Amino acid sequence: LVRSERFLASVRDLASIGATAGGGVHRLALSPDDIRARKQMVEWMEEAGLTVSVDDMGNLYGLRPGRNPGPPILFGSHVDTVPFGGRFDGAYGVLAGLEVMRVLHEHGVETEHPLGLAIFTNEEGARFQPAMMGSSVAVGKWPVEEAYAVRDQEGIAFGDALQASGFLGERRNRISRPLCYVELHIEQGPVLEAAGKTIGIVQGIVAQSWHEVVLEGEANHAGTTPPSRRRDPLVAAARWIAYVHEMAESSEGALLVTCGRIAAEPGAVNVIPRKVAFTVDLRSADEVRLRKAEEQMFAWGDDLCRRAGVEKAVRRLHWAPYTPFASGIRELIRESCLRRGYTFLEMPSGAGHDAQHLAGVCETGMIFVPSREGKSHCEEEFSADGDLVKGAQVLLDTVLGLDRT
Amino acid sequence: LVRSERFLASVRDLASIGATAGGGVHRLALSPDDIRARKQMVEWMEEAGLTVSVDDMGNLYGLRPGRNPGPPILFGSHVDTVPFGGRFDGAYGVLAGLEVMRVLHEHGVETEHPLGLAIFTNEEGARFQPAMMGSSVAVGKWPVEEAYAVRDQEGIAFGDALQASGFLGERRNRISRPLCYVELHIEQGPVLEAAGKTIGIVQGIVAQSWHEVVLEGEANHAGTTPPSRRRDPLVAAARWIAYVHEMAESSEGALLVTCGRIAAEPGAVNVIPRKVAFTVDLRSADEVRLRKAEEQMFAWGDDLCRRAGVEKAVRRLHWAPYTPFASGIRELIRESCLRRGYTFLEMPSGAGHDAQHLAGVCETGMIFVPSREGKSHCEEEFSADGDLVKGAQVLLDTVLGLDRT
Ligand SMILES: NC(=O)NCCC(=O)O
Ligand SMILES: NC(=O)NCCC(=O)O
Repeated sequence: LVRSERFLASVRDLASIGATAGGGVHRLALSPDDIRARKQMVEWMEEAGLTVSVDDMGNLYGLRPGRNPGPPILFGSHVDTVPFGGRFDGAYGVLAGLEVMRVLHEHGVETEHPLGLAIFTNEEGARFQPAMMGSSVAVGKWPVEEAYAVRDQEGIAFGDALQASGFLGERRNRISRPLCYVELHIEQGPVLEAAGKTIGIVQGIVAQSWHEVVLEGEANHAGTTPPSRRRDPLVAAARWIAYVHEMAESSEGALLVTCGRIAAEPGAVNVIPRKVAFTVDLRSADEVRLRKAEEQMFAWGDDLCRRAGVEKAVRRLHWAPYTPFASGIRELIRESCLRRGYTFLEMPSGAGHDAQHLAGVCETGMIFVPSREGKSHCEEEFSADGDLVKGAQVLLDTVLGLDRT
Repeated sequence: LVRSERFLASVRDLASIGATAGGGVHRLALSPDDIRARKQMVEWMEEAGLTVSVDDMGNLYGLRPGRNPGPPILFGSHVDTVPFGGRFDGAYGVLAGLEVMRVLHEHGVETEHPLGLAIFTNEEGARFQPAMMGSSVAVGKWPVEEAYAVRDQEGIAFGDALQASGFLGERRNRISRPLCYVELHIEQGPVLEAAGKTIGIVQGIVAQSWHEVVLEGEANHAGTTPPSRRRDPLVAAARWIAYVHEMAESSEGALLVTCGRIAAEPGAVNVIPRKVAFTVDLRSADEVRLRKAEEQMFAWGDDLCRRAGVEKAVRRLHWAPYTPFASGIRELIRESCLRRGYTFLEMPSGAGHDAQHLAGVCETGMIFVPSREGKSHCEEEFSADGDLVKGAQVLLDTVLGLDRT
């Protein structure tokens, strides 16, 4: 059984590194506070008897040998945060993994397979884009050279920041093919809370499609340009945004749509804009439906732009297919809940996670615990102690279950 | 008769001050180039026998006595431009006014009334907001202290810039109540060109209503927030913008709508925006209709925001009632056109001008000449030499007509 006091104290201690006045955590990837948090984790992992290794992306692995050699059962998450983020996003899964290792260590448990606690670098993608950089390189999905070349807003290359952090390790330390991977995470949404359930058994991660749409018309005087002479990209953008949200509304929850960014140039009250750029984030648990939604949006947009005399340029920023999780792992999570008497819900994850990349190379699963009011990526992010402890217990049960099978 | 060569040479000479590589003029109010242009104007005005005075807003007046004392017949415009603007917006009316003075000077004409050529400070509102600052203070509509306190984007106060320019004059030099005011200007729109007419007899300046609308919802995760939990201000803004443009479309040209500025915070692809701000510029020659359109927009917007769970804050940025021009002056312009055989069109001005403020204190009128493709506020702004000369001739005829009546 996990030891609640010890575990919750570690959650508090790690949250003090980069703590904000508002009760959150500000710990951007490879910032001084992220480096302090990593050093703290290395210390704790070594105290728990783990052998710590670092790969060429700065991913940290705390390894524990098993009776048999071979690839480890891996579990973990990340310790970086978004700006003024919460105390649990990422850190919770890592510290629950540490607690699993501590429990096994103090009871001298010997497992069949090696176990590994993973702390992936730059999951959030807040400082360096894209998100989930560390895991995508570790599994061989993305060339490390490209990751090194990515620059933050101040022009600092990821490779240089990694070198300076002291956490640049060796490529041969990557765990590219673990035996399996489990990630415990806060839900970041309101579903579990609303359903009154404690544990989310994650069925998979929704398919994601991100685009930037740039519309170009003609800047002109707001007072002297008659309607017939206007080629106004902001009117077209407004109609586009309204349309994709109507698509979402008529999908009965099958399609989520978010336009997060918009900018108009030149941006004066009395000048018809020349150019408008905005983003569209489409998600669905049904990948075929998502592709169809993209097609529908672009067909409608083509027609709109033709009628509005506006030029359109579209750039795909991100695509992730639907990532289903292994039924065996979902079954082990369910067994743990039934045995302990924890309520649970089978549900998809609307957010991307490192588990998405791991699922490409091994059997993978995720466990969620409730987020109060569904808030995340903000200082108000909160999950109750009781739920945090139960989630850690389910992780322990699941890891031991995986070891047996 | 105006002397075409001399007049067009002056247009060319003034356009060389602040000339851009693209054939336009970049001469922001009280910038070094604006100061050079003003000095050039003072020199030319004195050569034409005028007495130059400067008021406490830096407005320049070139005065010519008449047989009788009393307030002058005033005409003019401005010499500042928008960034990378055109050669004619403002400068044309000033130089045509100078040509009128030169013609009278060289023929030794004595008028009944004094004549005044006015060059108003900061008409464009590009560097210091609002636009038409000089004329609004001169006629007593706006306290000079408030104008002095306005700062440009670099934090320089208008009052300090005026002092430093050497063009800070005395309050008693203001011409607050001229006998009447006439302004010759390029149309800045495509109406005259499309109609194949040379002279626009301006009926009045459309009523203008500018608002900033700020919508606040709740920032949230694009992947984990179900539709029922979203309070998305960008969706509301998009529907609002689409709606006001539908209002314009169904008005059959009676209502012009422009949304020129929009910004969303925090502005990340996968974050539902917390806050969106945008502007709405509404114009109509029918002031009652404009008021009704405002009401309709806000009633609809209230309802929209209530349904979307979004808070709304509206700030009025500008209001100008419909400004009708004096029928007597319109009649004089028409007589000049008929006498000279120039084609003409009675039309409203969709753009604001200094004449708008003068109309509050004296009989006022405006004359337009065609703009190629309706372009203005850009380097491509162009009006044909022949039209420029005809416009100047109509100004001369109108001024002499006013002097007789
Ligand atoms: N877990 C998480 O917040 N991921 C960020 C990527 C996304 O899903 O938008
Ligand atoms: N003449 C002119 O461009 N005025 C600017 C103010 C406006 O009408 O928007």
